[in-house]
Amino acid sequence: MISKLAADRRLGIGIDIGGTKTLVIAADCGGRSVIKKRLKTPSEIGELLEKIKLVLDSTGITQSDIIGMGVGVPGRVNSKSGLVIDVPSLKWNNINLRDQFKSYFNRPIFINNDVNLSLIGERWLGNGKSYDNLFYIAIGTGIGSAIIANGTVVEGASYSAGEIGYFIEKEDIRNGYKIAGLEFGALERKASGSALTDNAQKLGFNPRELFREYRNGNRGVTPVIEEFVFDISVAIANVVCLINPEVVIIGGGVSESMSIILNQIQDKVAEYVPIATKIVLSKLGGEAGAFGGVAYVFQKIPNYMEG
Amino acid sequence: MISKLAADRRLGIGIDIGGTKTLVIAADCGGRSVIKKRLKTPSEIGELLEKIKLVLDSTGITQSDIIGMGVGVPGRVNSKSGLVIDVPSLKWNNINLRDQFKSYFNRPIFINNDVNLSLIGERWLGNGKSYDNLFYIAIGTGIGSAIIANGTVVEGASYSAGEIGYFIEKEDIRNGYKIAGLEFGALERKASGSALTDNAQKLGFNPRELFREYRNGNRGVTPVIEEFVFDISVAIANVVCLINPEVVIIGGGVSESMSIILNQIQDKVAEYVPIATKIVLSKLGGEAGAFGGVAYVFQKIPNYMEG
Repeated sequence: MISKLAADRRLGIGIDIGGTKTLVIAADCGGRSVIKKRLKTPSEIGELLEKIKLVLDSTGITQSDIIGMGVGVPGRVNSKSGLVIDVPSLKWNNINLRDQFKSYFNRPIFINNDVNLSLIGERWLGNGKSYDNLFYIAIGTGIGSAIIANGTVVEGASYSAGEIGYFIEKEDIRNGYKIAGLEFGALERKASGSALTDNAQKLGFNPRELFREYRNGNRGVTPVIEEFVFDISVAIANVVCLINPEVVIIGGGVSESMSIILNQIQDKVAEYVPIATKIVLSKLGGEAGAFGGVAYVFQKIPNYMEG
Repeated sequence: MISKLAADRRLGIGIDIGGTKTLVIAADCGGRSVIKKRLKTPSEIGELLEKIKLVLDSTGITQSDIIGMGVGVPGRVNSKSGLVIDVPSLKWNNINLRDQFKSYFNRPIFINNDVNLSLIGERWLGNGKSYDNLFYIAIGTGIGSAIIANGTVVEGASYSAGEIGYFIEKEDIRNGYKIAGLEFGALERKASGSALTDNAQKLGFNPRELFREYRNGNRGVTPVIEEFVFDISVAIANVVCLINPEVVIIGGGVSESMSIILNQIQDKVAEYVPIATKIVLSKLGGEAGAFGGVAYVFQKIPNYMEG
C-alpha cells in the first residue's frame, strides 16, 4: 500500500530494466519512495509492461498519481525519440520503447541508458550531490560509464558516450586484440566482473571470495587484485585528464566488494595524472538506476511537450 | 585600414595568445575579418596589451566598433572570472587577465583556453560546422585537446578538461613513467611535436622533412611515422568510446604535415573501436584560435552582464 507520507504527493516512476532483473521505484520529488519492487525481466516487452502495471495497480497508484516514468535500459537508446537501438542481453533491436510504454501507461515516458540514469540517481540522492562534472563507472558483467559535464549528461553523437569497456592500449593491439561482434571490449576483457570471475576461478574462488581472501591477507590472490586495481586506475586516470570530473563514482556489482581497494585506486590515479579528483563508491548501489529514473522524470517534465 | 565591407559592422576581436606569437583578428558576426595581425608575444602583459591597442588604433577601429574581445591563452583559465591559473610558456600564474584587458579596453572581455577557442572557431567557420559533439586534438610542441558536448565546451571541474597529453598506458607505468612538475605527459612524450622532433633528429630530419621523406617513400622514416600513427590512433579511439563525437578535428602545428597519414588514422580508429566517427584536419589552421575568440564574443554577448 502507498504510504501515508506520500499519499498526497505526485510520483515519478523509475524503472531500471536489467538483463535479468527489473527494479521499479515510485518516489516523490524529495526522493521518498513508496514502492521498491524487483521483478524478473521477461524478454518479451508486453509481458514486462504487464508486470509493471500490476505492481503499480496492486499498490493503489493510479495514472493520475504519476507525473511520468523514467526508464533505463542496458544498451544504446535515442533518448529524444525513445528508440532502443540495441540491448544485447535482451536481444532488443530498434524498438521504440517509449511507444510501447505509452500503450500501457498514458503518461510522459522518458527512456535513457541505465548507466546514465545511475549517475543521475547518484547526483540526486547519492555521492554526486551538488556536482556539475561527474563520472560514473559501472563495473559489472561488463564495464560501462556515464558522464555529466556542465550539469548535463553527455550522450554522444550516436548515444554511445561512456563505452569505456572499449578503452584500449597499444599492447592490446600488439597482443592481437580485435573487436568482433558483440564481444567484450579490451578493458572489459581485463577488468570487468566477467574477467574477475575467470581469474578468480583459476584460484578456486568467485569474485566476492577473491576480495574476501585479499582482505584476509591471502597472498595468493594479490596479483589478480593488483592487476585489477592497475587496470581500473589507468582507465580512471585517462578519463580524469580528458573530462576533469570533481568526483568519480564507482558502481556496478563488483563495486560492492571494492571498499578495500578504493584508497589504492585513489592514490594511483593521483600518481598517474596531475589533475585532482575524488573517487568514491556508489551510495545507492543497485537502486541508483531506478532512483535516477525518478530524478529524470522530475528533470524532464518542466520542458515536456506531448509528441 | 578597416575595409569598406565591414566599416559599418560591429566587430568581435579574437586574440590568440601563444607562447611566442599572438594573433589578433577583428571580424564581424559573419566571420568576415577586417584585421589579421600577428605579433611577437612579450611576456609582460602590459606590453602585450599596448601592442594590441596599437594594432586596433592603427586600423581605425574605435572602442565603439568593438562588441567584445575573446582571448585565448595556452594554459588553464577560469573562464567565469577571467583568472589565468597558469601559462607555463609565459610564466603567468594566477593573473586576472580579464581585469588587465579591462584596464586597456573598456569592453566585454571573455577569456578561455586557446584549444577550446580553436574548437569553437572550427565549429563556427571550419570543419566542425553544424555539429554538437566534437573533439579537437592540437598536436604541437605538446598535445592538448578540447571537447564540445551537447553544443557546449566541456571545461571540467578545475578547467583542466582536454589534458590528454597525460593519457597513459599500463606499459608507461611499467617502464617507470612518472609525472614530475611541468614536464610533458606520457602521450606527449611519445607523440607530440617535441617527441617527433627528437625522433626525426636521430634520422637527420626535422618533423616536416620527416613527413616529406615518408611521402617520398623513404623506408628509413617509416617506423617513426607508424609509431606516431599508432599512438595518435589509440588516443583518438579512447576519446571516441568515452565521448562519442561526430567529428574529430586534428589541429596544431604538426597537423599541417598529416594529410598523408589521415586515412591510416581513420582506419585504425575504426579498427580499434566499434563507434563511428569522422576524422578531419583543421580547416582554419593557425587562425582557429583567434577566429574562435571572435565566435566566443558573439556567443557570450547575449548573456553578458557587467560584473
